[in-house]
Amino acid sequence: MEISEIGEAGLLQLVFPYCLPGTVGDDAAVLAFRGENLVVTTDVLVDRVHFSDQTTSAEDVGWRSAAANLSDLAAMGAMPLGITVGLGLPPNTQVQWVADLYRGLAACLERYGTGIVGGDVYRSTVRTVAITAFGRVESSAVIRRDAAMPGAAIVVTGDHGKSKAGLELLLDLNLGQDLNLLDRQELIRAHQRPVPRLDVVPLLNKLQPEFVAGMDSSDGLWDAIAQLCRASGVGARIDRSAISINPGLWGLTERPINWVLGGGEDFELVLCLPLPTAQALVTLIGGKAAIIGQTTATPEILLIDDGQELLLSSDSQFQHF
Amino acid sequence: MEISEIGEAGLLQLVFPYCLPGTVGDDAAVLAFRGENLVVTTDVLVDRVHFSDQTTSAEDVGWRSAAANLSDLAAMGAMPLGITVGLGLPPNTQVQWVADLYRGLAACLERYGTGIVGGDVYRSTVRTVAITAFGRVESSAVIRRDAAMPGAAIVVTGDHGKSKAGLELLLDLNLGQDLNLLDRQELIRAHQRPVPRLDVVPLLNKLQPEFVAGMDSSDGLWDAIAQLCRASGVGARIDRSAISINPGLWGLTERPINWVLGGGEDFELVLCLPLPTAQALVTLIGGKAAIIGQTTATPEILLIDDGQELLLSSDSQFQHF
Repeated sequence: MEISEIGEAGLLQLVFPYCLPGTVGDDAAVLAFRGENLVVTTDVLVDRVHFSDQTTSAEDVGWRSAAANLSDLAAMGAMPLGITVGLGLPPNTQVQWVADLYRGLAACLERYGTGIVGGDVYRSTVRTVAITAFGRVESSAVIRRDAAMPGAAIVVTGDHGKSKAGLELLLDLNLGQDLNLLDRQELIRAHQRPVPRLDVVPLLNKLQPEFVAGMDSSDGLWDAIAQLCRASGVGARIDRSAISINPGLWGLTERPINWVLGGGEDFELVLCLPLPTAQALVTLIGGKAAIIGQTTATPEILLIDDGQELLLSSDSQFQHF
Repeated sequence: MEISEIGEAGLLQLVFPYCLPGTVGDDAAVLAFRGENLVVTTDVLVDRVHFSDQTTSAEDVGWRSAAANLSDLAAMGAMPLGITVGLGLPPNTQVQWVADLYRGLAACLERYGTGIVGGDVYRSTVRTVAITAFGRVESSAVIRRDAAMPGAAIVVTGDHGKSKAGLELLLDLNLGQDLNLLDRQELIRAHQRPVPRLDVVPLLNKLQPEFVAGMDSSDGLWDAIAQLCRASGVGARIDRSAISINPGLWGLTERPINWVLGGGEDFELVLCLPLPTAQALVTLIGGKAAIIGQTTATPEILLIDDGQELLLSSDSQFQHF
């Protein structure tokens, strides 16, 4: 049987039993180390699967690779210690592409006070950027997916759907003719230079919520909500009107909400925590952050739109295979 | 310009300036963490570059991948905490291949009391196994390449050239007709199931040498000696007669010493330390370990063979591009 027949979910089911108990199933692994925790996450980008010369410069590939991994650390409540880079290159790769890639990696990492601490370069038939990021977090501050209690407020940072919109603009130059230049740049930048929400980690540490569950929205906002609910054994009621939709999206697609819920790669955080702490967190974050609903004891995930309850499948997720 | 024109050395020169100072150039990066050290190393294997279905079963690819990374930890004096696995797969990969790979990984890791703690599976055009291993080591016990003093004894563990011999036997079924079955199996096993020398780490901790420099011999015994000398600013006199040559090699090649010095992938340790501690270490290791020479204040690396001094180039190394 081929892996295309079992899909990504089947593949993960296959490999999980070979992993140490309690280490997989979250955005990153958490390992006890001298009374603190080491957090480790790996993410690999492959040419023509995760990036392409058409939409992403080498510098942007570097930035995005670093940002995606730092986002996984933020999703665990961890601050970064460093990353390693495994770089697979066909021999005819341009030297300039490699230099630009590292400049993008270093620029993103420097912004968050961390850097590259090692790696491996190797020959391959396809350009491949394999990053492992590690960070640290106190045991009491680890954010897991399975810790949501019923009745928790669901907080979402930032705008969703912007990365998808930016990608579509890059792929179709005829799209968004009515978009003003600043809005267009903002959307494209959201795709090329996503910002990991490490800024939220110290705010959470300050608030010390009674409980917190969370993950990042790299595979889409809806996927994050569904995964948090599944892992925690809860459901959710999401208020459609509380979800912000970037005005720029309206001119690009008839149903912006689909891009907001399913676009992916926005690298924002989705957190479940007690309502008072959630309200305090939204205030501390300032600007773009909102409570978009609450978790429920029943397992359904409902989208409340104009007073109508829509039952959404919790199985929707980005399929890598 | 293409990277094939600057080679692996040129590529490393290009990327090093983007790495945090003091973290690259050894078998692994060392990061201070709560008064101890976190050691991190990354190694990537690609189908048809580092392994092939012809010579390596999926289970062996798994074992070798894990062993190579654990060997890098041993070379830093560190004991393993865990590994992450980034696995790139074409959609038509057999499910059984993936299961066998993980079984091989887990078997090797279990032997050393560690395991897989996370990873990423992704679609690629070529099977790729990207491993990051992390371990821990007290600051006083870190083994770096640049710490060799002149007059140090050079200790080599195990037999070299066996992995190369095993590979040649797998590639050419007509080779080694006179070899008895046990010797043949030993050589093939050396290639398929290399053993990282984590057993040496606690012995070194027990001896607490005044200084120790070292690395593993994954790119060949001669390369390891040359790299240690370069990093430490010393030379070496190597006694050819002190280097063990596995008897099985004699029937396979006219010049076994070439395979011993240049074969690579034996994953043994090459260590420079004061003579008395070196002698004690060889005794503690028992069996296959030997002092094969000493470091010198002059930078040349000499191979002493039958009383003749051969000056060997220190530039010989495995070129990945």
